[in-house]
Amino acid sequence: MDYIKQPIEIENRSMEIIAPHLQGLGLDEAATKVFSRIIHASGDVGYAPLIHIHPRAIAAAQKALQAGCDIYTDVEMVRTGINKRKLAQFGGSVYCQVAEPGIAEAAKAADITRSMAAMRAFGHRMDGQIIAIGNAPTALFEVLRLVGEENLCPACIIGIPVGFVGAADSKKALAEQQTIPYITVEGTKGGSPIAVAAVNAIMYLLDNSRS
Amino acid sequence: MDYIKQPIEIENRSMEIIAPHLQGLGLDEAATKVFSRIIHASGDVGYAPLIHIHPRAIAAAQKALQAGCDIYTDVEMVRTGINKRKLAQFGGSVYCQVAEPGIAEAAKAADITRSMAAMRAFGHRMDGQIIAIGNAPTALFEVLRLVGEENLCPACIIGIPVGFVGAADSKKALAEQQTIPYITVEGTKGGSPIAVAAVNAIMYLLDNSRS
Repeated sequence: MDYIKQPIEIENRSMEIIAPHLQGLGLDEAATKVFSRIIHASGDVGYAPLIHIHPRAIAAAQKALQAGCDIYTDVEMVRTGINKRKLAQFGGSVYCQVAEPGIAEAAKAADITRSMAAMRAFGHRMDGQIIAIGNAPTALFEVLRLVGEENLCPACIIGIPVGFVGAADSKKALAEQQTIPYITVEGTKGGSPIAVAAVNAIMYLLDNSRS
Repeated sequence: MDYIKQPIEIENRSMEIIAPHLQGLGLDEAATKVFSRIIHASGDVGYAPLIHIHPRAIAAAQKALQAGCDIYTDVEMVRTGINKRKLAQFGGSVYCQVAEPGIAEAAKAADITRSMAAMRAFGHRMDGQIIAIGNAPTALFEVLRLVGEENLCPACIIGIPVGFVGAADSKKALAEQQTIPYITVEGTKGGSPIAVAAVNAIMYLLDNSRS
């Protein structure tokens, strides 16, 4: 079996294959990197026309990262995938509390999902920080409620939950609000590797080394 | 914003939406569960015609799980996503060593990916166990080399790496070998939530409670 085994060669070849699928989308260099990493992570060029990046989103996320912001996420798989060594170089950490015992109890008491309860419990700790939702539509809906009703003001929302129940609606609501810069994917597709790809792409734009 | 907030209702509604997309594929009840969880995890009904389950794969994986087998994986996101509490009830654990310092050194020395070096280092520890590859084509190619050249004999290979460089070829090679029962997805799509969905679906078939 003959195949490419070198990490850098794999990534470079992948980006070459992806590039033609981004033609005509009018992307600048930074957006191209975010789109490319999402498609690289999904193996799905069908993402190209579905990704939406608010005009100020990448710059806002970069400014927050450079100020040492933290990242708040709905599920452990997103925390696992984010390059935490790179984030620590900027001074930040990733927080996820969906697995905390108190959250399970709060979710059960309110008859809501654990990830929704977890985002509610973070509350204004997320002001000025980056939020990355990679799984639960309910978590994104709750973040949007906090923005709309409780003046939560995160630096950027990377909102890419997945699935057939609420995901498309929650992402549409994210793209329709005008307050917070965002990155999202329209429709049912998404998930933790997609949210992770967007976060890591933005960090790698600031510093091209991976470790 | 009005939306469904109850975890069980979300999952049931999702499965109802997915069901019509599995019509005509000739799936038995167990395969239907695996297909459904993969589509649920990806938000992508386009997976339906791409999933391939070897006739003995689910039964072989279940038998191994019931005997307390461990699961060996290429990346931390797969380890994170697998329901480890459920696996522990059967007696098993999940192992991933891609982030071990010795693996990084071995990969650098051999000019191969870390996940490939990690699977090579597991070697015959994987005999009789389940292997779940959710990211790296090189890891799956290496597992297939171990099977072909070194008589590695895992109970089942869930091989669903993702991307444009090697993923489709590695999964084709998996489906073409006749030795080890497998679950895979043809083409470039795949990834850690897809491998996780297959593993968790098989565990939930054995015991329908989630925790």
